[in-house]
Amino acid sequence: MATSGDIGLAAAINILTALAFLIAFAILRLQPFNDRVYFPKWYLKGLRSSPTHSGAFVTKFVNVDWRSYLRFLNWVPDALKMPEPELISHAGLDSAVYLRIYLLGLKIFVPLALLAWAVLVPVNWTNNTLAKSKATDKVEYSDIDKLSISNIPHGSQRFWTHVVMAYAFTFWTCYILRKEYETIAAMRLHFLASERRRPDQFTVLVRNVPPDPDESVSESVEHFFLVNHPDHYLTHQVVYNANKLAKLVKEKKSKQNWLDYYQLKYSRNQSKRPMKKTGFLGLCGDKVDAIDYQTTEIERLSKEIDEERQRVKTDRKCIMPAAFVSFKTRWGAAVCAQTQQSRNPTLWLTEWAPEPRDVYWNNLAIPYVSLTIRRLVIAVAFFFLTFFFMIPITLVQSLANIESLEKRAPFLKVITDIGFIKSFIQGFLPGIALKIFLILLPTILMLMSKFEGFLCISSLERRSAFRYFIFVFVNVFLGSIIAGTAFEQLDSFIHQSANEIPKTIGVAIPMKATFFITYIMVDGWAGVAGEILRLKPLIIFHLKNFFLVKTEKDREEAMDPGSIGFNTGEPQIQLYFLLGLVYAVVTPVLLPFILVFFGLTYVVFRHQIINVYNQEYESAAAFWPDVHGRIIFSLVFSQLVLMGLMSTKGAALSTPFLIALPVLTIWFHRFCKGRYEPAFIRHPLQEAMNKDTLERAREPNLNLRGYLQNAYVHPVFKNDEEDNDEDAHEKLESVIVPTKRQSRRSTPAPSKISGASSPSLPDTGPENSHP
Amino acid sequence: MATSGDIGLAAAINILTALAFLIAFAILRLQPFNDRVYFPKWYLKGLRSSPTHSGAFVTKFVNVDWRSYLRFLNWVPDALKMPEPELISHAGLDSAVYLRIYLLGLKIFVPLALLAWAVLVPVNWTNNTLAKSKATDKVEYSDIDKLSISNIPHGSQRFWTHVVMAYAFTFWTCYILRKEYETIAAMRLHFLASERRRPDQFTVLVRNVPPDPDESVSESVEHFFLVNHPDHYLTHQVVYNANKLAKLVKEKKSKQNWLDYYQLKYSRNQSKRPMKKTGFLGLCGDKVDAIDYQTTEIERLSKEIDEERQRVKTDRKCIMPAAFVSFKTRWGAAVCAQTQQSRNPTLWLTEWAPEPRDVYWNNLAIPYVSLTIRRLVIAVAFFFLTFFFMIPITLVQSLANIESLEKRAPFLKVITDIGFIKSFIQGFLPGIALKIFLILLPTILMLMSKFEGFLCISSLERRSAFRYFIFVFVNVFLGSIIAGTAFEQLDSFIHQSANEIPKTIGVAIPMKATFFITYIMVDGWAGVAGEILRLKPLIIFHLKNFFLVKTEKDREEAMDPGSIGFNTGEPQIQLYFLLGLVYAVVTPVLLPFILVFFGLTYVVFRHQIINVYNQEYESAAAFWPDVHGRIIFSLVFSQLVLMGLMSTKGAALSTPFLIALPVLTIWFHRFCKGRYEPAFIRHPLQEAMNKDTLERAREPNLNLRGYLQNAYVHPVFKNDEEDNDEDAHEKLESVIVPTKRQSRRSTPAPSKISGASSPSLPDTGPENSHP
Repeated sequence: MATSGDIGLAAAINILTALAFLIAFAILRLQPFNDRVYFPKWYLKGLRSSPTHSGAFVTKFVNVDWRSYLRFLNWVPDALKMPEPELISHAGLDSAVYLRIYLLGLKIFVPLALLAWAVLVPVNWTNNTLAKSKATDKVEYSDIDKLSISNIPHGSQRFWTHVVMAYAFTFWTCYILRKEYETIAAMRLHFLASERRRPDQFTVLVRNVPPDPDESVSESVEHFFLVNHPDHYLTHQVVYNANKLAKLVKEKKSKQNWLDYYQLKYSRNQSKRPMKKTGFLGLCGDKVDAIDYQTTEIERLSKEIDEERQRVKTDRKCIMPAAFVSFKTRWGAAVCAQTQQSRNPTLWLTEWAPEPRDVYWNNLAIPYVSLTIRRLVIAVAFFFLTFFFMIPITLVQSLANIESLEKRAPFLKVITDIGFIKSFIQGFLPGIALKIFLILLPTILMLMSKFEGFLCISSLERRSAFRYFIFVFVNVFLGSIIAGTAFEQLDSFIHQSANEIPKTIGVAIPMKATFFITYIMVDGWAGVAGEILRLKPLIIFHLKNFFLVKTEKDREEAMDPGSIGFNTGEPQIQLYFLLGLVYAVVTPVLLPFILVFFGLTYVVFRHQIINVYNQEYESAAAFWPDVHGRIIFSLVFSQLVLMGLMSTKGAALSTPFLIALPVLTIWFHRFCKGRYEPAFIRHPLQEAMNKDTLERAREPNLNLRGYLQNAYVHPVFKNDEEDNDEDAHEKLESVIVPTKRQSRRSTPAPSKISGASSPSLPDTGPENSHP
Repeated sequence: MATSGDIGLAAAINILTALAFLIAFAILRLQPFNDRVYFPKWYLKGLRSSPTHSGAFVTKFVNVDWRSYLRFLNWVPDALKMPEPELISHAGLDSAVYLRIYLLGLKIFVPLALLAWAVLVPVNWTNNTLAKSKATDKVEYSDIDKLSISNIPHGSQRFWTHVVMAYAFTFWTCYILRKEYETIAAMRLHFLASERRRPDQFTVLVRNVPPDPDESVSESVEHFFLVNHPDHYLTHQVVYNANKLAKLVKEKKSKQNWLDYYQLKYSRNQSKRPMKKTGFLGLCGDKVDAIDYQTTEIERLSKEIDEERQRVKTDRKCIMPAAFVSFKTRWGAAVCAQTQQSRNPTLWLTEWAPEPRDVYWNNLAIPYVSLTIRRLVIAVAFFFLTFFFMIPITLVQSLANIESLEKRAPFLKVITDIGFIKSFIQGFLPGIALKIFLILLPTILMLMSKFEGFLCISSLERRSAFRYFIFVFVNVFLGSIIAGTAFEQLDSFIHQSANEIPKTIGVAIPMKATFFITYIMVDGWAGVAGEILRLKPLIIFHLKNFFLVKTEKDREEAMDPGSIGFNTGEPQIQLYFLLGLVYAVVTPVLLPFILVFFGLTYVVFRHQIINVYNQEYESAAAFWPDVHGRIIFSLVFSQLVLMGLMSTKGAALSTPFLIALPVLTIWFHRFCKGRYEPAFIRHPLQEAMNKDTLERAREPNLNLRGYLQNAYVHPVFKNDEEDNDEDAHEKLESVIVPTKRQSRRSTPAPSKISGASSPSLPDTGPENSHP
């Protein structure tokens, strides 16, 4: 068992590591040649230009102003200074609300920590149960355990303090959660209401369009919506399966980059035309003139792309049974997105279209039955993934117990007897081993979500986050508690009974406090300080810059800052919520460590969101119900575990009092779900009508059709249109073809509307779809 | 333990009882004076007139045609003859689909029984495990056990037969369930599509209208819907809290009945004016002229009613924050019912209005927060109800074990040694004791549902059915299995472990087969035969007819046949599904008893639905998802129990094969839920649009406003309107008052529509709201 000395050493190491990271960051960020790594968001916004273009040669790369180094922590007030409304307009609501999760942690745990230290710590400390049991049974204990519930004698009346505190903590947590849910629902609605016009406000994604032998998908969609939404239907765009085309376009782009590079090179040095080898990676093969070679290649690809585009548009197999249907008003779209269209509920599935950049195009055409089967397959696969990952972690966990290691391999005793190394192994190893496992995971989970068939990147991330949390809970949290203990007292663990499980976990919880303290320091403190240093992007950027970057465009791409990574970040925070809530009553000494984590990460991520990350999409905080739900789960879990622990401590009388807590908490969750969740999944007609009315008053002559015409074109077509506009016209002409079936019951004048939506009219030229 | 002799005796008794009931029914139903008890539905439909009005005096009351008695079972083919479409138009879709539950039982269990008897019974029979263990351990067993899984030796390879059969049974059940869900969804949609115009097709119930200091509820509703559904809003009706008024109206009606009676009496015998005493129940007090007295009483009440009606209409406290909002088209109503109206999701809650006769008026004004609290309170109360009912049942169950009774009270031995009495007690007692408990329950559960705040009688019944099933499952099924065994082997039951629970139940299941066979015979066979006899309604009708019926109207009321009672009937059927599925693999000998139950009840209820029951409302089979879900629950439960049983039988190898079954079944349930459930809770726009278009073509000049104006008037007002029409006009005038607030943003010309909806126009006179 780790003593408080071990903890102290680990704390010292981690604090030093974190400090070293922070200082390194402070120095590196001031160097102009790192500017694009540490402030890419400003470049992308066009508010900062490359500092390498001006000044003396040395100052281009190194900051020689010694005074700026003195203020090496001044990024902290900078990060905190930006007010929230500005942050929302700078980085989007998703990022701003993401930061509020950390703030929520502080709001919950600061009062909890104060109360726990004021009440529970003295109550725990003023006993001598552990000292006694050490004297009689030789039970080892650390100083930290003296502050925990373990130090209360069996059956003591003092346990009532813990029951009262459990109530206080629950009520405080729920109060803050409710307030936060309310605030964020209001922020979301305000954000959506004050947003400028966007294509997704008018558009609904329709899937599972039934096949019709007489009509193409496009005709079928148009007829259906003309019949069933006659007053509101405006236009639609079918979805093409353009995966091969996307590949060709990507290839062409790369060749174009090379061509640019060679032309640049030639223009600098006119004396010698650049040459290249045609073989593998330019290392072997015939030597040819590079500019000529790339030009012919590009021509070949352009031709292939044209052919492929023709094929995509003409081949019926390339048209997926899905479409983006746009309406004349937001009201019409809100109605269509929330209602069922056909009597067969698996056809004509409508849902509010995601933002164009949020769409995950590959999944748009999965039929209903396949979706349910995929869901089953992934559920089973995830179950196995979760429960077979246990094995390696359990093995590593057993290493953490150095005494048992020594027993099995006595030759290691020479090394582990050195106090420093022993402390090092005990303090670091378990945390790092876990961390390595976790790095591999998000990619697998993301693939699972993609396979499952979600339609937009934001839901993919939310789903992955959900799975990641389950994984972390089972493998990191429960794995550490039960498996770790299992190696110590395996025999008593076989033949566990149902209501014994909370007891088992409850008993193990206080014993694992020191482990989780070291985990928090390694993962939470040093890990977050490493996050701000951005070591991996830094190295990659400089490598790319040195070896690969040929044009300014390439440099832009090399500095790609990525986005926050909700799917990995949020479950990590949730683990800290879980730890904080579980240990609040049991071992309050853990709370300050959690507070440091939340404070530090809040500052660090605020800085990163302002200066670095560039969100791919904007879901308007659609993830908050998940965040809320997981905190509620942690709260209920902590209550059950406390009940189990209490009943083993001879405080069985407290059980009836504690059982009310989970019931009330779950009820609270249902209340919040009913009260606030609709703000995140439904679309009030009142709001839509308000915006429509305002818009009609302000811009009576708005050409909405032109605005929406190309909003949901597959990105491959879009990139291409930017290059050559005539292609767009050509493509659009094939979208609406005259109907072959003449006698369609109660279709009001299809030919008129088809004609109106054809691109031959002057108002339908391609426009920029991002307002 | 009951032997097969006991079972035989019980079967004989129950078959005789059932036969006696059937013969009694056959005789009683042919008597003209019982005609209103056994054929009330035809009277209510106006297709049968009272046979007492014609013929000789004797034949008025007794059927003397001896030939008709010979064909005493000819109601059976009569009941089966009516084809389903005719049944639907005769008794409604709810009743027709309710009958299909019994048919579903036959469809599932006939092949199961055949397969089980063809395969499992021979496999079980050709062992001698029980004979051996009797020889060695003196274990008692009955002949029925020889046909059950208990007779397979420990660890035998023969268990694979049971695993394969479990798969076959699951697949067959799921196949039939899916087919049936599909059929009933289609029936529902067809029924809704072919229905005539009904007010609820155009109407949405709006609740939680926010209070507005400037406007009345009616104004507030009108403005909100004029703004947010400008093209579709037609009219609305506010909801009054008219509970006191309803009481007064009821009182007046009773006095009116007495007046009619006395006038009838006086007209027959002019010589003597009827007198009555004014005191308690007419037994004491001053003697007054009855006709004069009732006339003055009625006048007094009429005055009070007028005052109360004025108060209800003028007092703002009597107007509930709820309204029935009607739309110009079904499409508009479908849109409004399925969308969220306001940004606060607890205000302006809309849902499709129930049929006028299905509305439960008292619950229309419960605010959101109160609803969630009520739900919590009822959940806790139901938990206690369910688990404290256990105690008396457990006591009675212990009686069933006569041997243990004899041990405790040896003086009873004299009686119980008589073979016949012993068999009687063992065969009958447990079933009857359970039945008595269950009679008390539905009323309590209905009160609970009412308190919980459901808005229509159909949901109240569905909710009660759900609770009743849980109760029956815990107390009748699990109570019989675990508690009964618990008294026998209490010691081995304390300290049960989690994964041991299926084992415990699984082991007890085969031992309880004989108990459930007797239960099926008492409750299912004799009980159902008792149902057709309608002994209670028969007695009550004749008592009322003799003592209370004064007028023809009273006689109509005395014969009130009631409705099927979904809240008690369906959970009872579900118990048989549960028993059938659980015992199909374990003790297939039970299946024929279940088949007899399903066959008998099908015929009996078909007869009752055709001739007796008069549905209060029509929900278009909205209960089917519940029925489906509970059968799935029973199926999963049976699989888990089988797994538990197998693992104790030394067939642990089969567990991995069996674990796939519940996973697949739950997946199947989710698939069905996604595929078919929306047909029962959502309203496809395509259908609505179809009907709208057809109607517009057929009746272009339909006065929809007049049709809908009074559809959702509180029944108290409605009854009254039938009496005096001028009241209706008066009442309606107060519904729409001119708006006080003039500058309401973007309200399109409210005064015009308000004016149009005012009752001064000729087209708004009260119409019959039941088309």
